[in-house]
Amino acid sequence: MSIIAINSRNQFKGVIKQIKRGDVVSEVEVNTGAGIITSVITTSSLDDLKLKPGSEVIALFKSTEVALASFSKV
Amino acid sequence: MSIIAINSRNQFKGVIKQIKRGDVVSEVEVNTGAGIITSVITTSSLDDLKLKPGSEVIALFKSTEVALASFSKV
Amino acid sequence: MSIIAINSRNQFKGVIKQIKRGDVVSEVEVNTGAGIITSVITTSSLDDLKLKPGSEVIALFKSTEVALASFSKV
Amino acid sequence: MSIIAINSRNQFKGVIKQIKRGDVVSEVEVNTGAGIITSVITTSSLDDLKLKPGSEVIALFKSTEVALASFSKV
Amino acid sequence: MSIIAINSRNQFKGVIKQIKRGDVVSEVEVNTGAGIITSVITTSSLDDLKLKPGSEVIALFKSTEVALASFSKV
Amino acid sequence: MSIIAINSRNQFKGVIKQIKRGDVVSEVEVNTGAGIITSVITTSSLDDLKLKPGSEVIALFKSTEVALASFSKV
Repeated sequence: MSIIAINSRNQFKGVIKQIKRGDVVSEVEVNTGAGIITSVITTSSLDDLKLKPGSEVIALFKSTEVALASFSKV
Repeated sequence: MSIIAINSRNQFKGVIKQIKRGDVVSEVEVNTGAGIITSVITTSSLDDLKLKPGSEVIALFKSTEVALASFSKV
Repeated sequence: MSIIAINSRNQFKGVIKQIKRGDVVSEVEVNTGAGIITSVITTSSLDDLKLKPGSEVIALFKSTEVALASFSKV
Repeated sequence: MSIIAINSRNQFKGVIKQIKRGDVVSEVEVNTGAGIITSVITTSSLDDLKLKPGSEVIALFKSTEVALASFSKV
Repeated sequence: MSIIAINSRNQFKGVIKQIKRGDVVSEVEVNTGAGIITSVITTSSLDDLKLKPGSEVIALFKSTEVALASFSKV
Repeated sequence: MSIIAINSRNQFKGVIKQIKRGDVVSEVEVNTGAGIITSVITTSSLDDLKLKPGSEVIALFKSTEVALASFSKV
């Protein structure tokens, strides 16, 4: 079985740059070419997916999770 | 008062490309260096921040919200 | 390109029972072995995935999103 | 004081199968009869609720957190 | 059946001040005495819980959803 | 660059009361006018923001993350 499409509008392909492995959750930095996206996933998932630095992945998140901020340039 | 830093590791600067205004929530497409990031925020917030196409914003989300997927190239 | 695996531990296969279509977001009820799982996604995603009642889908969510409650039986 | 109803449409009763205790957060696997639901909560909450393998709990999550994916059967 | 405790550390009792009813989701402002907390829930849930201005509710959210920002006072 | 406004309607100013530092994520208790708000953020963010007990911060979260519960007083 393969997932062929997911509803998440926000999907960024990249390569894992670094993993900070924790006991329950781990922090994964994904180099997406357009900047680093950081993900915190369970260490169990990390192992299930056999993720390691250099692995190609897609970082994805739901639109409802994204906040917007305005800013001044000064 | 200005927020000077936020803990979110994932922050992408961009320009609003398009807004789909709804009664309670609205969908905002932000053109970032990384591609389009879509955000769903309340329409009240949209109005408070006076967001419109062309506005410069930062799209931000917590690392705990980001999922990772592996994929085949075929 | 196909996603072959995703880190989310919580994935439930099911069939769409009902869709309440909104202007910006829509509510989708998925009949899974586990009972009904309700998802709110953008209407744009609903249309991109061509979802309709009867469509087979996977409902998925991150472990960090799941709360736990204890209860009394009385 | 008892909570008598919560807005979350997604509530699954189950029994805790396994706990992976971490320093700050812990991973809890809940056997819901219709499959395992995994939750990551703070270890402080785990202790407050006195959760242990065998405890009956309700796993709950908001509809806005649920993503949908379509898939091929091949 | 009553929920007697929930793992969410962040629970604030209050009274509903205002509801902006939408087709799929609604925005609910809860006056917690220590400030307004705004919640977006499905309109189906709003109706299931029979929420209306004046209803007493608990607003709750997971610790993993809370971001922290530092700020300057100038 | 300063963020001058963020779409999150839920923003509570407070002072950090206690930090439980973990390997990957840390738990931060913020004493606000509204009571204690607990946040789980990455330990990397904690260090970037130089947060410690006594630091003034804003705790913020999206409306879509807030659930509502009704309760009995008995």
